[in-house]
Amino acid sequence: MQIAEPLLVAIEELSKLPSIGKKTAQRLALYLLKSNGEQFESLVKALEDLKAKIKFCERCFNLSEEQLCIICKNEKRDKSKICIVEEASDVIAIEKTHEYSGLYHVLGGVLSPLTGVTPDSLKIKEFLKRLEKEKAKEIILALNPDTEGEATALYLSKLIKPLRIKVTRIARGLPIGGDLEFADEATIGRAILNRGDF
Amino acid sequence: MQIAEPLLVAIEELSKLPSIGKKTAQRLALYLLKSNGEQFESLVKALEDLKAKIKFCERCFNLSEEQLCIICKNEKRDKSKICIVEEASDVIAIEKTHEYSGLYHVLGGVLSPLTGVTPDSLKIKEFLKRLEKEKAKEIILALNPDTEGEATALYLSKLIKPLRIKVTRIARGLPIGGDLEFADEATIGRAILNRGDF
Repeated sequence: MQIAEPLLVAIEELSKLPSIGKKTAQRLALYLLKSNGEQFESLVKALEDLKAKIKFCERCFNLSEEQLCIICKNEKRDKSKICIVEEASDVIAIEKTHEYSGLYHVLGGVLSPLTGVTPDSLKIKEFLKRLEKEKAKEIILALNPDTEGEATALYLSKLIKPLRIKVTRIARGLPIGGDLEFADEATIGRAILNRGDF
Repeated sequence: MQIAEPLLVAIEELSKLPSIGKKTAQRLALYLLKSNGEQFESLVKALEDLKAKIKFCERCFNLSEEQLCIICKNEKRDKSKICIVEEASDVIAIEKTHEYSGLYHVLGGVLSPLTGVTPDSLKIKEFLKRLEKEKAKEIILALNPDTEGEATALYLSKLIKPLRIKVTRIARGLPIGGDLEFADEATIGRAILNRGDF
């Protein structure tokens, strides 16, 4: 196969990205080649800015441009609630719902003894320090409903409850638009146990 | 929604790329943020090299690092055959088959009166000049089997045939792994007309 080296290298690098295969990488590379200089420059600049300017918020470890993230800095957010999530992408997911106005705390992972993730490798110490300073009244555990997420939630609740702070967790049940017939037993079981008044 | 500006901009820029939606763009941006500096640098460098180093081959208008592309420069390629394609991506597609060892000529499009693509906006003049200088014995038309591709093939064959050069075109028929039941009538019709000895 005889293809110009820079094109091959670009295809190779693009196909290392998640969810981008060789065919998509080739399509992207050829698209970028054809695109005008302005569009290309703004893409490269956006990527460089992303890498250079984004760091972690000193308080909640969300992605941030400054020492404190845009959410921690916002005076209008409800400071009595802290929502604990696994990754910064979960903050984006929850922010998109426009249903939550409290603060966050990003753990940076979940407990997983098999892969060597212990409480020390997560931002749990930092969270407990926050609880000493801030007057949170409710801690919302928004971890994924899988084994590691459940174990981490249990671990955290045991740490927080002695501090006499209310601990809640996001509801488990059938997803909106879901179908009883095709849902797994664990989900339906939870949905029945967690049934609410109509 | 409160998300750091550089992240929003990066997601916005990435989602402008073809076949990349908002969700994939967000995933890519967060992946790049997490990736180590080395991997990130090599991606940005590959993209910049792509844009800076790749130009068009002076002879065949394939993508190239130098005045002549890697195929035109290769002494081992069969100079008696020139394969006419629409875009540089078609050269890559044919090169991947390892079935063709001749030269190429990239038109840069196909005739399309509706969108204003006339013979003058394609590299047809340049191709006729090539035929004067080079001793090609066979011109292979490898244009897409759609209306514009067929019209362009017809136009080119009328220009080339008076020069007493053999003009062929790539076969139309059922794709390998295809199914008679699900193929369209036009394809099956062509496959019957173009049947060959077994």
